[in-house]
Parts: sequence; C-alpha cells; structure tokens
Amino acid sequence: MLIVMKSDATEREIEDVLSIVKDLGFRAHPLPGATRTAIAITGNQGAVDPTHFENLPGVAEAIRVTKPYKLITLDLRPEKTVVRVGGDAAIGGEELALIAGPCAVESRAQAFAIAEAVRRSGARFFRGGAFKPRTSPYAFQGLGEEGLKILAEIREAYGLKIVTEALDDHGVDMVERYGDVIQIGARNMQNFSLLRRAGRSHLPILLKRGLSATLDEWLLAAEYVMAEGNYNVILCERGVRTFAQHTRNTLDLAAIPAVRRISHLPVVIDPSHGTGHNYMVAPLARAGVACGADGLIIEVHDQPERALSDGAQALTLEQYEQLVAEVRAIHEVIAPATVG
Amino acid sequence: MLIVMKSDATEREIEDVLSIVKDLGFRAHPLPGATRTAIAITGNQGAVDPTHFENLPGVAEAIRVTKPYKLITLDLRPEKTVVRVGGDAAIGGEELALIAGPCAVESRAQAFAIAEAVRRSGARFFRGGAFKPRTSPYAFQGLGEEGLKILAEIREAYGLKIVTEALDDHGVDMVERYGDVIQIGARNMQNFSLLRRAGRSHLPILLKRGLSATLDEWLLAAEYVMAEGNYNVILCERGVRTFAQHTRNTLDLAAIPAVRRISHLPVVIDPSHGTGHNYMVAPLARAGVACGADGLIIEVHDQPERALSDGAQALTLEQYEQLVAEVRAIHEVIAPATVG
Amino acid sequence: MLIVMKSDATEREIEDVLSIVKDLGFRAHPLPGATRTAIAITGNQGAVDPTHFENLPGVAEAIRVTKPYKLITLDLRPEKTVVRVGGDAAIGGEELALIAGPCAVESRAQAFAIAEAVRRSGARFFRGGAFKPRTSPYAFQGLGEEGLKILAEIREAYGLKIVTEALDDHGVDMVERYGDVIQIGARNMQNFSLLRRAGRSHLPILLKRGLSATLDEWLLAAEYVMAEGNYNVILCERGVRTFAQHTRNTLDLAAIPAVRRISHLPVVIDPSHGTGHNYMVAPLARAGVACGADGLIIEVHDQPERALSDGAQALTLEQYEQLVAEVRAIHEVIAPATVG
Amino acid sequence: MLIVMKSDATEREIEDVLSIVKDLGFRAHPLPGATRTAIAITGNQGAVDPTHFENLPGVAEAIRVTKPYKLITLDLRPEKTVVRVGGDAAIGGEELALIAGPCAVESRAQAFAIAEAVRRSGARFFRGGAFKPRTSPYAFQGLGEEGLKILAEIREAYGLKIVTEALDDHGVDMVERYGDVIQIGARNMQNFSLLRRAGRSHLPILLKRGLSATLDEWLLAAEYVMAEGNYNVILCERGVRTFAQHTRNTLDLAAIPAVRRISHLPVVIDPSHGTGHNYMVAPLARAGVACGADGLIIEVHDQPERALSDGAQALTLEQYEQLVAEVRAIHEVIAPATVG
Repeated sequence: MLIVMKSDATEREIEDVLSIVKDLGFRAHPLPGATRTAIAITGNQGAVDPTHFENLPGVAEAIRVTKPYKLITLDLRPEKTVVRVGGDAAIGGEELALIAGPCAVESRAQAFAIAEAVRRSGARFFRGGAFKPRTSPYAFQGLGEEGLKILAEIREAYGLKIVTEALDDHGVDMVERYGDVIQIGARNMQNFSLLRRAGRSHLPILLKRGLSATLDEWLLAAEYVMAEGNYNVILCERGVRTFAQHTRNTLDLAAIPAVRRISHLPVVIDPSHGTGHNYMVAPLARAGVACGADGLIIEVHDQPERALSDGAQALTLEQYEQLVAEVRAIHEVIAPATVG
Repeated sequence: MLIVMKSDATEREIEDVLSIVKDLGFRAHPLPGATRTAIAITGNQGAVDPTHFENLPGVAEAIRVTKPYKLITLDLRPEKTVVRVGGDAAIGGEELALIAGPCAVESRAQAFAIAEAVRRSGARFFRGGAFKPRTSPYAFQGLGEEGLKILAEIREAYGLKIVTEALDDHGVDMVERYGDVIQIGARNMQNFSLLRRAGRSHLPILLKRGLSATLDEWLLAAEYVMAEGNYNVILCERGVRTFAQHTRNTLDLAAIPAVRRISHLPVVIDPSHGTGHNYMVAPLARAGVACGADGLIIEVHDQPERALSDGAQALTLEQYEQLVAEVRAIHEVIAPATVG
Repeated sequence: MLIVMKSDATEREIEDVLSIVKDLGFRAHPLPGATRTAIAITGNQGAVDPTHFENLPGVAEAIRVTKPYKLITLDLRPEKTVVRVGGDAAIGGEELALIAGPCAVESRAQAFAIAEAVRRSGARFFRGGAFKPRTSPYAFQGLGEEGLKILAEIREAYGLKIVTEALDDHGVDMVERYGDVIQIGARNMQNFSLLRRAGRSHLPILLKRGLSATLDEWLLAAEYVMAEGNYNVILCERGVRTFAQHTRNTLDLAAIPAVRRISHLPVVIDPSHGTGHNYMVAPLARAGVACGADGLIIEVHDQPERALSDGAQALTLEQYEQLVAEVRAIHEVIAPATVG
Repeated sequence: MLIVMKSDATEREIEDVLSIVKDLGFRAHPLPGATRTAIAITGNQGAVDPTHFENLPGVAEAIRVTKPYKLITLDLRPEKTVVRVGGDAAIGGEELALIAGPCAVESRAQAFAIAEAVRRSGARFFRGGAFKPRTSPYAFQGLGEEGLKILAEIREAYGLKIVTEALDDHGVDMVERYGDVIQIGARNMQNFSLLRRAGRSHLPILLKRGLSATLDEWLLAAEYVMAEGNYNVILCERGVRTFAQHTRNTLDLAAIPAVRRISHLPVVIDPSHGTGHNYMVAPLARAGVACGADGLIIEVHDQPERALSDGAQALTLEQYEQLVAEVRAIHEVIAPATVG
C-alpha cells in the first residue's frame, strides 16, 4: 500500500501514520517528495485495507497495491487450466468449446429438436435452464427437476455435456445429480453462500460475470469457489450494464486479454445475453473467438418467436450452423497468434 | 405494447404481425403514419414480452408499455406504507427513522459502546452485520450467531430494534430468532430464492438496491417478497456503480421521488455505502432527508480507524450526534413540502 | 508515481526500470516486499505519465500519485473563492446564489414574464439560452443575438445578472457584449479551444460538468480556464450519464464535498438537467442545498407544456416560488454545519 | 409517439390530451386497454418532443417512436457508403481500411520512421495528431502547423493518405490545406459549431463516438455534418466510459451491427483508445474485424516507451506488421458472412 500525505501535512501527522503502520506489524518507508511525502508499506502478506488510513489527519489518499487473490493467478499456475468435463470433453484446451441450446428447457420435444441440431452443427455442450432467475415473479421460472430429467436424457441420446444453472444449494444438489457443469448466473456472482456450496461440488463451475462486476470482483468470486477446493472454474463474460441502449448489455471483450494476463482460468463468451438481439449474436460471437475466447455459449431455439424467455436473442438452427463454420475458420486463423 | 414497423415493411409483413397478435389472444390496432405503420396491442392483462415480435420480418422495434409489477404500486395502495417494527417503532411514518451502528459486530464491548451512544443521539434502530458479504474470501466474514446474540442483548439493554443482514435461508432463520428487520444486501437483490424466503418471514425486510439495478428491477425484487405474502418491505438506496472515482458508489437520490411516484413503499438512504468516505456521509445524509427520505441507515464506530471492515466510511460517535441534530432540523423544514 | 513489479520480475528487469527513472531525471526508491518489489518515484515537479513504464518487461502496474492540477487547489488558495458578478452580486459567498429562467429565450414576452416572476421569488441571476446545443440538427437552435438583446433588456429592467451559454469563440464575443456570466455547457467541457478563449474573458465562467467527466477531468477543465488568467470559475454539477432510466441524468451530489476537499472553486447544482423531470426538481434542489451547494440553476417557464425545449423539466412560476422558500430555510439550518 | 395514461386518469384528462394533440396538428388515436388508456399520435413528419405531454394531468409516460435522423439512414440510401479518399483510396469498400501511425507527430524523424514501416506492413492511411486535445493544460499539445507539414511530406514520400484531428474552425482550415481526412475527436462529438464547419468541408470526416454517446447521439452528430452537405462521414467506435477499470475505455463492438442496421455509413474501430493497453490492442483489433468493421485505426510507435503521449497503448512496428497479417486473414474468412 501507498499512503500519500497532503502537501501541508505536519511532521507530527507523518510520524503518527508511521507509528500506526508499525503497530499493525508492517514496515513503513517514508518517501519525501518535492511537494509532499508518500509512505510505502511493505511486509504485509495479503492486501492491507486502505480504509484504516484514509481518515487519519494529514492523509490525502491511501492506494492499494497488492491484489487480494491467490489461487486464480498465473503466479500459482503459469499455464492455462484445461477444465475436463465428464471424461471426454474439455474447456480451455486447443479445441473451441461450443455450448448451445435454449434459454430455458420448455418441453421434451423442444429440447430434443434443438439438441439434435446443435449436435449436428458441432456443439459438444448443451445449455438449457431448468431453474430460471427472472426479474419478475410472474414470469416463467423453469420446469425445475422435470427440466433436468429432460437434460439428462439429452446427454444419453446425443452425448452432449449438460451445462445448466443452479440458483441455490438445492439447485446445486439437483444439477449434481443430472448435469455436467453448474452455471452460476450473473445475478448470483456475489451470492457468497452459493459460491461456497459450488466450491464443494465435484462438478466444474461456469461462473458468469456480474452485471457490473469489476475484473477483481469476478476473479475473487472464482477465488471463493477455489478456496473451497473446486479448481475447475470457467469464467464467462456475458456483457455488463452501461448507459448504452442499442444492446441489452455491453459485451466487454477486453475482459479476455485482461483475464489472460492475470489468471490461468479459461474464459468463454456469451454473445446472446451479451447483446440481447438476434442480429448481433453472430458478429459478436465471431469477435469473441477472434479475441481469444476458449468457447462460446449461445442460445439457439427451433422457434425463437415462440420461446418462453429471451426469444429475441436466440439464433435459429440454421443461423447456428452457419455461425459454427465461421467461428471455426477464425479460430484456425488465430490459433498461432494466441499461443504466445 | 407498441410494435413499430420499418418504413419499407410490406402489407404482407404487417398482416403477419396482426395475425400473430390475434393468435396470442390480444387486440391489434394498426396505426398507419406518414412514414411507417405502428401497431398497438391491447387486451393483455400483464406485460407482453416484446421479444416475441422483435425479429419478425418488417418489425423495426417492439416497445413495452405495461409495467410488470402490481403489489408495490400506488394503484394497489395509494397511501404510503408505514412498516411497524416490533410494536413500538415504525419506518415510513412522520418520524424520521434513524438506523445506526457498526458495519460489522466485532465484539460485545464495541457493539455496546456504539449502541449506547447512538441511542443517546436519538437512533431507534441498531444496525450491525453478523454475516458479512465480503468481496474476498479471505476477509473477515462476521461473528455469525455469536454476533446475533450480542445484537439481541443490545435490544434488551437499549430498546433499539435490530436491523441485520441475512445472506441465505439459514441466515433468515437466525435473524428471525434474534432480530427485528431482515436486511437483504445489494449483492443479493436478485437472489430470487432468498427473496422468496424473505417473503415468507414475519419480519419486515429492508431491501437494498443492487449495484446496477434499474428502478424496475428493484421494485420487482420487492414484488418477489410481497408476492409471497410479506408486505412489510422497506427500500434502501445505497448508491449505484458508475464511472465516477471520487466515491465508492454514486448515491442516486432521484430514486426517492421516482419510487414515490410509483410505489407506496418507504425509502431509506444509506449514505455510508453510498459514498464510502467519512467526510461525505453527513452532507449526503442531509441531502437524503431534504430529498424526502423516510430514514437514514448510517455506519457509526467508536474507533473507525480500527474497524474490521469499512472503517473509512464510519462516522465517529460525535459526528453522528451532530448529524442527527442537523437532519432533524431539515426534516422539520421540509415536512410540509413532502406531505403533498 | 509507484511502479509495481511482477512477482516473477528478474533482478535485471528491476535494474532496467531504475535506470530509466534516473534517465528521466527523477529519483527511484526500490521497495522490496514479501512477494514483489515496488519502485517509488520522487523528484518530479508535475505528474509523471505512467504509460512510459507500463509495458516495460517485469512491470505489473504503474500508479499515478501526483495530481496534474495546481491553480484550482486548496494548496494554492485555502479559502473558498467568491466570484463577484457585475459589482453587486456574488456566487460562493454566504448567500445562496439563485439562478433561474427558461431553457431557451423564446420571445421577449416569454422572457419578461419569467424574469419578473423569478425576480419576485428572490432570484438574483437570470438564465436563458440564446445559442442552444441541440442533439438533433433539426431542433430549435435558439434566437442568437436577438435572444441576447432580450436578455440585456431584462438586466436593465429587473437588475438580474445574465447567465447564458456560448458554444464557440463567436458566442463568447457576443456574451461578453450582452451578458454577465458565460456558461460552458456539458458537451463542451473538454472543448479545449473554447476553454482557452473563456480563460481570456473578463467575465466569470460557469463550467458545467461533462456527461461522463471524472472529477479530475472537470477540475482540469477549470484549470484550462484559469491557466489563461481567468480565475472566476464556478463549477456546475448537472448530472452524469449512467445506466439508470428513471432520470435523464444521475445527479451526483457527492461531487460537492469532493470538490470542497480539493478546490476553492464554488459549486452550483442544476437539478433541472440533473433529473429531466419536473416532479424531481424540487426534491433534488433541496438536496443540493442540504449538501452544501453554493447555488442552484433552475429552469422555470410560464407555460412549460409549450416550451420549445426541455419543457418536461421546467418548474412553473408557482413551483419556483415555493421552492425558494424551502431551500432558503434549509440553507439557514445547515449554514453552521458547512462553515467548518 | 405513444402517450400512456395513468390507470386512474379521468375521462376529462384523456379528452384534454386528445385536444392538445389536435392543436399541434397531429392525429390522436385513443386505445382503451384492460387497465389504462394509451394514445397513439400519427401525422407528424419528424419526431414529436415527448416533454410536451409528460407533465399533463393523468399522463403516466410519453414514449418517442419516430427517430429524428434522416440522412444517415438506410431508408435514404440502402447501400453502404464507400467514402473515397484522395482519388485512389477508400473506406467502406471491400478492402479493409488500415489507418496507422503515432498518437502525436513528435518530429520529422519519428513520423517518417513509423510511416515507412506501416506502409510496408500494408497501411494505406497515416494517422498522427498535430493538434492534441489533452486533459491537462500542461501536457504536450502537439506541433501544430509544423506537424501538419510533416504529415504532408509523408503523403508525398509514401503515398499514404493523412488522417488528422481538428479541434476548431482554424484547425479545419489547416487540415484542409495539408490532410486528406479530418478527424473529429470523441470530446468534440457534440461540438455542434465544429460539426457544422466540418459539414462545409470538401474532405471526408472521421467522426469518433463520444465517451458516453448513445447510438442516436452519435448518428445525429453525423447528421449535423451531412445536413451541411458533406456526405463523406466515417464513424469511428473508440470505446465508451464505464465502471470497468481493466481498460481505459470499454470497446463497444456491438456498435458495428447496430450502426449497420440503421445507417449506410462505414464504421472503423480504434482498439488503441478503445483499450488503452498495448497487450489488448491486437486481440481487440482482430475482434473488430471479425465483427465486420470497415477498417482499423491503430497507434503505432517506433519507441513506445518514449512517446510524448499515450505510449502505453501504441504497438511496436513489429507488432503492427504481425497484426495486419492476422486481421487480413480474418477479413478474408468473414467476407462472405458480412456481405448479406
């Protein structure tokens, strides 16, 4: 940490800060400058809370330097984590992970029709919500366990790995029974009880970025899961909330290189929620892959205009098939670029 | 809902939209304009999902008109709700509700020292976290049930009503045993499982606005609680996340008149989290009261520089005492202004 | 500045950074920590550009410490600036500065009717645009010089000081001829040519905060004006752009204490643009004064529903009269609180 | 426009709105619904200002439907505009437009070294600021006319077209003398005087999106230029301001498909300002091209660590060469995808 004193701070005020730093068990390094003194603090193992210093007399600012995460860092593991799913699939490896399916499982017929098509187009993972977090209490909330059973059947029928959301501890129990990857949604990114429960699961966790989460908050949410022992975390950028009105969310693709620079965890992109509009999904999916994403999670529906939720952003089966061809070609082009 | 057709939409495309609207059981009103046709939809009881129409050929835009909430509205109850707490206290009535205490309960001695002082200054409610949602898994997470027991003792000793946060179902059970008002934090505003559990509680709910929640999302979170039968909801504005860096959050006081225009629920202001800096708390607390807030929830600490969390924003006991005098004077001045 | 090295930075990389710092003429202070080395830089007169260091091998982060402004600071002038306007009026003194009038001057009759009323209610300053910055090229752009002449007549007739916007050098010339305070609008806050021209004017400058300006950018815009010799700058908070949709802008009242802590310049609040809705103006105006604002600039119209621009946010003459009574009462209550 | 009445609006209030609409010369269509009445307005040529209605008794909301732009729309010109530059170059055609060069022209030697290299890598346009808009008045402000002369020499020497910024009318005069494309920077996107002057120029205008500009505001800024007669406008997405801290700005690539859906104007991407960090530029540049951008404007420097401005985001000459190879390969892959 660095404490910057006011330009008119007195000797006494500087002494007081030095003494408090020492009391806390750290080393203080006074750095007199042309107009003001700064005090660097070392010797701390973790991050020091700047709020201890901010209101002391003579202090202008307290700046945090050490980051509070450990397990997610390249310091701990310099190579990218490849998350194995169900024995024969992976996210974070050389192959682009293709996750596709409806926003919500609506019926057996609907889910099977979509699963058959996305499997044929090349997807290895099937997404579909059985428990839906809806802004309104009066909106369709998902089929619950019945939906999970349909998903389990799809795994049997098509060999697709099942990625599906849990909203609470009970939901985690259920997904553990029927699914392959537990999704933690954006609205639950800082539901710390749920993160801890996910950290005790044997299944990988797909952790969506919160609607207005900073990079540090997102990585610390992953750290919560890992701190409980579950190292199989996949980060998912799904757009953040901004003033912009032409999209539902603003997809922040710079999160991909930003995560890469700090963390070994793989990152997938959700251009469906990240834009909210059908016509934007393919361009942004291509962009995500060109930017170095490890995979794409995309909403696909056989009849988007009749979907029970989020129909406007779902791709048709044909659109998805074409998109897969495009993103695979881009992935091939950039493969050498992103190795280094 | 209003569907706006593209200026080059064909007759056939317009016919198709009209026919789909009728299929859904609604009435369609075509409105030919100078450059384009719009189609108004009526006959729907609740909100219609615009996504059903957005991708149809010839459609430029689908605009939602009906709001999806009911129970929170002035249509349902035209007068402001006065939430009774524990028989002899209230939030939303004529008296300004003063809620004060430390960020976290750290020890019996600390909590009692603060409680004694804020009671003397005029507070009727004591805040203090036993379960703390912390961004980092390695930060102090609260004393748990031990903290709740200290809070219950404070109620006995000083007659203060206890406002404290629950992070999950287990936490709600515990607060029901020891506290008076259950706080749902900003990070859990869209933890729909938790909202439903809170809706089945006999205690009032203080519902903080999410870090980037729109007004509608916040009101719908309250609707989740009320839809389960608990009508005693207090809204709490605690600042939203913006690009600004001089504050921890940007306190959005316009939320007060905005809520008033739509809802009967009372609104309190949290200038501590809403600013994050000690020197901003008093000015923004005064501003909140001048803007018509029903109460203030403020962090107070006997030794802010030694607080285990959020010390930078806590008021000292003396600062709090002075603030109460100021806000009461302002409340008196504006009382006639806000009656109408 | 503080340079934080990566935890795996080599001795050689650290040496290289130290050597570059010395080459730039500064002193480097290496601070070896538990997990990584930081390097503090002193000896710089102004701010050092962190970008010189950010991409050097082994560097994790470069953190700016010294702020680049001088003239606006309390270091330079510890007491608040009182901006004198036209001999017998002031902004920043003990009296609350009341600036009121229509968004745009629309006609002589309209402007006189409003001026007469706001003068009677207690305003000392009259606002009204002759040059209007409009988002659409097809919207009403103001009456130009004809509007300024009407404003000059109003000064004669009612003794009100004229606050009006200039959009370019020519506009500054014109306002210098007819007005008393030159307003620089939010959209021009970083129009550096215009700021320099304003800095060479003999009239005070009311500088609105940009739609997404940080505190530092806003203060540096004032620094641009002052660097040319014009020290009479009044800052005006008028709301910033956020994701929120219940207001046109989010009024950031925390800017008042934030400016106070750094700068001697007075701050006025614009709750009209800061909210965009008539029913929010009075509560937020009261809040601004309770927060310590030096004045209020408010849109008032005799027939808001017929206004040529921004009618939705204008107060009626009666609403303004009532508001003045309220804010004066609040100003009296908090006067002792804000002296210190 | 659509006016939504409150659920308790009286017959009389509805009549009053209908009568005001007719007075304004429009047609009103009352649409009684299950819980409330809406009133659609048609017959207006341009957009109707919702603020005329918002405060009328009984009105809940007034929703704008018609967009206020004309010249930028696909309605006016259904095919993408190809902006011809200096006879033998173009932006918006089949070839990806590659614009590269230093943030600021610092010296003849620097500019020539960079120009020679980017020309060899494949760039057809050279960027470099002679007039620099700097946040601080004390930062390097560019070489002015001397810089423009160097740029003109580079055009002669390498056949590169010159893209350079003008900050005011005088700057436009100067760039018209020495350059090929006039850049309007993000901070001037709503400097309407400057936009009008640019609209009277014979040179194409590269119009950067403002820091927090909505899509509509950006397109209307282009409309300002076109309304004066200059139809050669190139839009440039350069990132917007959000809460995110891992980037200088958040690059909003969804702006590309959003513009495409409404406008015929070409769009280029600036990943240098859009990210602010060297290591993010290549991934985001690839993403921009994959998303369908018509070109890239990128900062390149022969000695980034010694750049006088924005060194942290500049690519080295080698990095740029490699990037061009990557983006060309991606452009080839997606060419068929973006034709439709």
